[in-house]
Amino acid sequence: MSSTICAIATATGGAIGIVRLSGSQSFPILRSVCPRIKADTLPRSAILTPITTTEGELLDEAIVILYPAPHSYTGEDCAEISCHGSRYILNKVLELLVQNGAQLAQPGEFTQRAYLNGKLDLSQAEAVADLIASSNHATHQMAMSQLKGHFSSELHQLRDQLLHLTSLLELELDFSDHEDLEFADRAELLALAQTIDQRITRLADSFQTGNALKNGIPVAIVGAPNVGKSTLLNALLGEERAIVSDIQGTTRDAIEDTIQLAGITFRFIDTAGIRHTDDCIEQLGIERTFAAIERASIVLWLIDKEPTADEITGMRDRCADKTLLIVQNKIDKGNACCNISDLTLSAKYGKGLDDLRERLIAAAPKASDTDVIVTSARHYEALLRAHDSLTRVLEGLAINLSGDLLAEDLRLTLSALADITGGAITPQETLNNIFSHFCVGK
Amino acid sequence: MSSTICAIATATGGAIGIVRLSGSQSFPILRSVCPRIKADTLPRSAILTPITTTEGELLDEAIVILYPAPHSYTGEDCAEISCHGSRYILNKVLELLVQNGAQLAQPGEFTQRAYLNGKLDLSQAEAVADLIASSNHATHQMAMSQLKGHFSSELHQLRDQLLHLTSLLELELDFSDHEDLEFADRAELLALAQTIDQRITRLADSFQTGNALKNGIPVAIVGAPNVGKSTLLNALLGEERAIVSDIQGTTRDAIEDTIQLAGITFRFIDTAGIRHTDDCIEQLGIERTFAAIERASIVLWLIDKEPTADEITGMRDRCADKTLLIVQNKIDKGNACCNISDLTLSAKYGKGLDDLRERLIAAAPKASDTDVIVTSARHYEALLRAHDSLTRVLEGLAINLSGDLLAEDLRLTLSALADITGGAITPQETLNNIFSHFCVGK
Repeated sequence: MSSTICAIATATGGAIGIVRLSGSQSFPILRSVCPRIKADTLPRSAILTPITTTEGELLDEAIVILYPAPHSYTGEDCAEISCHGSRYILNKVLELLVQNGAQLAQPGEFTQRAYLNGKLDLSQAEAVADLIASSNHATHQMAMSQLKGHFSSELHQLRDQLLHLTSLLELELDFSDHEDLEFADRAELLALAQTIDQRITRLADSFQTGNALKNGIPVAIVGAPNVGKSTLLNALLGEERAIVSDIQGTTRDAIEDTIQLAGITFRFIDTAGIRHTDDCIEQLGIERTFAAIERASIVLWLIDKEPTADEITGMRDRCADKTLLIVQNKIDKGNACCNISDLTLSAKYGKGLDDLRERLIAAAPKASDTDVIVTSARHYEALLRAHDSLTRVLEGLAINLSGDLLAEDLRLTLSALADITGGAITPQETLNNIFSHFCVGK
Repeated sequence: MSSTICAIATATGGAIGIVRLSGSQSFPILRSVCPRIKADTLPRSAILTPITTTEGELLDEAIVILYPAPHSYTGEDCAEISCHGSRYILNKVLELLVQNGAQLAQPGEFTQRAYLNGKLDLSQAEAVADLIASSNHATHQMAMSQLKGHFSSELHQLRDQLLHLTSLLELELDFSDHEDLEFADRAELLALAQTIDQRITRLADSFQTGNALKNGIPVAIVGAPNVGKSTLLNALLGEERAIVSDIQGTTRDAIEDTIQLAGITFRFIDTAGIRHTDDCIEQLGIERTFAAIERASIVLWLIDKEPTADEITGMRDRCADKTLLIVQNKIDKGNACCNISDLTLSAKYGKGLDDLRERLIAAAPKASDTDVIVTSARHYEALLRAHDSLTRVLEGLAINLSGDLLAEDLRLTLSALADITGGAITPQETLNNIFSHFCVGK
């Protein structure tokens, strides 16, 4: 932790590139490459200054800003060098900084230091990576809310309530001689524990929404052969996308078939076959169709004639916990309108697509501005652990287990929640796992 | 010119992204998206401030810096917003700035404004693009030297000398009654004009070096079938590069076969065939081999047995103005050493490659730190024009043409040099041509 780290913080290829430094030796190291920066240079001021090589050659004229500890991103002495965005210059600046004692930063090391210095808790640090990766309004808002500490604040409230519950249990032990007091206390304890558990369960449940919004809401397009599934998919994805896919050829699998509607990503699943033949799902087998439905939040059932009652019942059963949209295609052919269909369209002529898009947006889970949405599998897992141990506390309270027997499960609940925001006890392995997914320079 | 422009100045995909603003409305527009920035916010100070959308949503917390005119890159009021490097955030910031009255900048528009406001001359502005594109020490140094005005300063000196010459000619006209004075004056004028022409010619000649260093020194590998040309090429390019080429498949032509040695780029020309068959040059025909030699600065003639005297004479004639390196390959086979060879190697076993690399470096044109090197075809063309008109002045002086007849060609010489640094008379078409090759945000 005593080392001074450096990294290029921008992607290369732009007009401007930024190199960052953090650590106790940031300023002396910076002065060795920017000789005009002095010990009394104003902090937080944009200084235009030459960068010179060890041989005294002018490498660039850059804007340098010093951020002395503790009022910096990492909480350490930090500096930013904003130079011309040439790969040669940026790499040369890094090389000079390393020659003068800096070390190349690991992925996420700046944010890890910010976390270790108490600038951010762990869930906020994770939100930084989510924020940078955010590609639409929904993911951006969730990451920003988490970065601003809304989730952390919810967890702190839960922690306070759990500590209150613990202290009430201790109080109960102190008064255990007074048998007449016990019943009232237990009802209060049970009510409090249930309230806490409801909040934890609501947070855990939000992961389904958060995960869908973060990774795209999974949509399955199913239906009989030649009903127009590939035509519909291509119409939704747009011509251009289809061409891109063709160019990529063998790497087509790596392309995600997603669309953005009203700031939400919809991800069409199991489309590898649909794209090139209308018979894909059939070729892949009925089991794979069922698996696609299983993974979907929204199922588009494409029909061109009235399905049988059995087919309808079967599909409705299978989609009990999903949004099922029954879509009648080929209205251009003048087929009679099916009674069962939710909407009608012509994929071939692009008719009715706007209606379908509105139905998709309406079927998407909503992240309200005020609700905390869990988006990380790590947080979800910790919330499930908290719920499990709290469930045991609830069961214990119900059968009048004594307070000291409940204490361990209460401790586990607190510990599970603490894993989300992190702390002194967070294992290095967990930190490595989290920060290694960051980009270098963040 | 009264508009306020904005652009993303960094490549997207990094930890940090920068949006720039320039124009008289920069600060009011900035304040509309960063409500905490006030009219009295300190200039050139890094301010951490929220960016909010029109709906009042928090988009990001960013570092904002104001650079009031005239002490800014463009000479106008400028601002930089340094936010999280998410494509969503960066595009949204741009969108907000445009909603509040900014216009999206054209490629190079910031630098064009810097030029129009007298912050840089035209050759310096062009150096900015070269600096950003620079990929090695040689190109970087040439661009930096040009940006720092060494070329401009040379041109100003030439201009002063030309003006001096013009005034001497006017003086001569004034004293034209005194016939005895004329001879001495003409000798002086001729000497001065010759000195100027030598400097212009030296600058024009430097373009061959500058162009080679900027675009890579062209190297041709030629030789008989099966002498090991493809093996040598792949050995020099390295295994990894060959694999990259294979992966790219059909886009292989777009890959430049270049190597960097001692901060200089060497570019192997007409390698499309060599890479996949040793018989390439032969397949392409003897004419194409000659064309490759024609385009090369350095010719590697690969042999595995003593060439005939005719072959040697033919090759030496063809490479009269180039560096010809006769390289004997396959020393691993124990062939007798050819008397004619400059060096011996085994491309197959990587023996002697270091020696070859040193020979290549030695054969490369040198850009000394003090010499001004012309790297732009536009500048070269202007220097040739200056030389042409000055040649007519020299001829006129030699045959004692009167000063007023020489004045027009002197004016053309001055004008050709002025085209390089630009000015009020530079046509908009020239500017468009120059700045459209810049990246957006610069």
